[in-house]
Amino acid sequence: MHVMVIGAAGMVGRKLVERLAVQEGALGATLSRLSLVDVAEPPVPAALAAIASSRTLDLSAPGAAGTLAAARPDFIFHLAAVVSGEAEADFEKGYRVNLDGTRALFEAIRLEALNAPYRPRLIFASSIAVFGAPFPARIDDTFFATPLTSYGTQKAISELLLADYSRRGFFDGIGLRLPTICIRPGKPNKAASGFFSNILREPLAGKEAVLPVEEDVRHWFASPRAAVGFFLHAARLDLAQVGVRRNLTMPGLSARVGEQIEALRRVAGDKAVRLIRREPDPAIREIVAGWPADFDASRARALGFRAEASFDEIIRVHIEDELGGRL
Amino acid sequence: MHVMVIGAAGMVGRKLVERLAVQEGALGATLSRLSLVDVAEPPVPAALAAIASSRTLDLSAPGAAGTLAAARPDFIFHLAAVVSGEAEADFEKGYRVNLDGTRALFEAIRLEALNAPYRPRLIFASSIAVFGAPFPARIDDTFFATPLTSYGTQKAISELLLADYSRRGFFDGIGLRLPTICIRPGKPNKAASGFFSNILREPLAGKEAVLPVEEDVRHWFASPRAAVGFFLHAARLDLAQVGVRRNLTMPGLSARVGEQIEALRRVAGDKAVRLIRREPDPAIREIVAGWPADFDASRARALGFRAEASFDEIIRVHIEDELGGRL
Repeated sequence: MHVMVIGAAGMVGRKLVERLAVQEGALGATLSRLSLVDVAEPPVPAALAAIASSRTLDLSAPGAAGTLAAARPDFIFHLAAVVSGEAEADFEKGYRVNLDGTRALFEAIRLEALNAPYRPRLIFASSIAVFGAPFPARIDDTFFATPLTSYGTQKAISELLLADYSRRGFFDGIGLRLPTICIRPGKPNKAASGFFSNILREPLAGKEAVLPVEEDVRHWFASPRAAVGFFLHAARLDLAQVGVRRNLTMPGLSARVGEQIEALRRVAGDKAVRLIRREPDPAIREIVAGWPADFDASRARALGFRAEASFDEIIRVHIEDELGGRL
Repeated sequence: MHVMVIGAAGMVGRKLVERLAVQEGALGATLSRLSLVDVAEPPVPAALAAIASSRTLDLSAPGAAGTLAAARPDFIFHLAAVVSGEAEADFEKGYRVNLDGTRALFEAIRLEALNAPYRPRLIFASSIAVFGAPFPARIDDTFFATPLTSYGTQKAISELLLADYSRRGFFDGIGLRLPTICIRPGKPNKAASGFFSNILREPLAGKEAVLPVEEDVRHWFASPRAAVGFFLHAARLDLAQVGVRRNLTMPGLSARVGEQIEALRRVAGDKAVRLIRREPDPAIREIVAGWPADFDASRARALGFRAEASFDEIIRVHIEDELGGRL
């Protein structure tokens, strides 16, 4: 089985590939070839060096998507995207990469099948950014997509294309709307959502972190490990069960910042909590107020997708996966 | 005020232009220039000959959209589209015209503003085809778009683009999801929805019509006159009232085929009803079963959009507008 990961140098892409390296049969079949693609050189795990190749390529460049489809992978994980802030700051780049790049991939698959029968499984990373305020207290699976960012618009359009190309039989696609991934490994960043991870990751490493909002702010989370799990489950799932509505809000944990902090206290003590410095930032508070706080996600749960049930669990996953299992 | 109608040779486009010819100030300001555009030569009403020009042009052809935006119309009515059946039969043409053509227009407006400030009002003809079964008994304004046709997908994508371009300030856009237009003037056609009009229009003209479904089939309707009214109202509306959710399900009449027939009986007598020949067609029945039957449309109604309240009224509109006011 030939698997291609587009966006393999990103955080979730890398973790997905690392999981394929350690968990044989993660996709329900033997991995015979692995193609890793990104605009920056994607890392190749040593355990997969014999079957993996990496390729530096911009999906939106002329001919790029055709080159990928010509390799006829059986599974395509498409995680490549310009992130929300950049797509908002650079209108043309966001549409070129997130919309035109995705559509070029879909078209390349459709056209490749004109040469000889070809219908890969395609798993697409979408986002809860397809939703825009105002929201009901809990967003159900039939709530409409009215994005308030160009990034969310590009993801919502990609979802529609994915559903139509799947309905037409050009590929067997599924779109996964990821929750905000927490705890993101790495350094604190300036993304408006960064603090959700910073206030846990930094104190766990004995460092200070800044909290720019009140403790009653509620949002929707899953760990990086859960996100990888969504992609692997989507790859194995019988999509006939999913029907024609191919884009699913993934399960997650709805939690307040205060709950994050109490979980940190239980796992790492008061000392860790004291490292959180409160510096209210009205600009960040306003951005975050437009974000969804809670979802129903019952379709995805019924289909077997699973996320964490508590922030204690999300913190434990971080300690196991990023800190070698100990504080 | 310079007004451009793209798709001016289509049924609704022609009626919109005819209305501009007879109703001075229909748009709340003096019409100083009228540009009519379509792939087929659009007719120019005699009363507007002094200020109107017509242009035969394919919006999806290279450079075409730029030519239109360079004329800097204050109002753009965009009604041009490949219809549902054709977009399903010819995948590439549907996407080229309905998606790429629309996006080319939006992009041309954005780029035109780089030369000198420009922000037209753009009124877009969308469709209830953005919705796909299964439905609740009544579809509210927050129900999601999961189209079951490529045409519906292209309209849903255009809606998302329209909302994002409006949010960004590139134009002041509004999308109108039209009900099934009934009674369509002209000859019976093979469209799956054709019978809804045929069973009224033909008997009103003393001719036979075929009914391929049962009388309990329910669907969502507005007259051609109401559709023109939607466009004119959208042109005059203060879009700040509409907010960022710029695509609206237009009001309509939810009615069963049996109610259509009873209205025909009241207006034109048993003789007319006897001209309806029942010829059940399982293929058409199955297509129509996937269509929406009823909408809430309370947002559009609150914003002042109006449609007919009974099929008697829809039939009277047809008699007035198409049959010179008498049977």
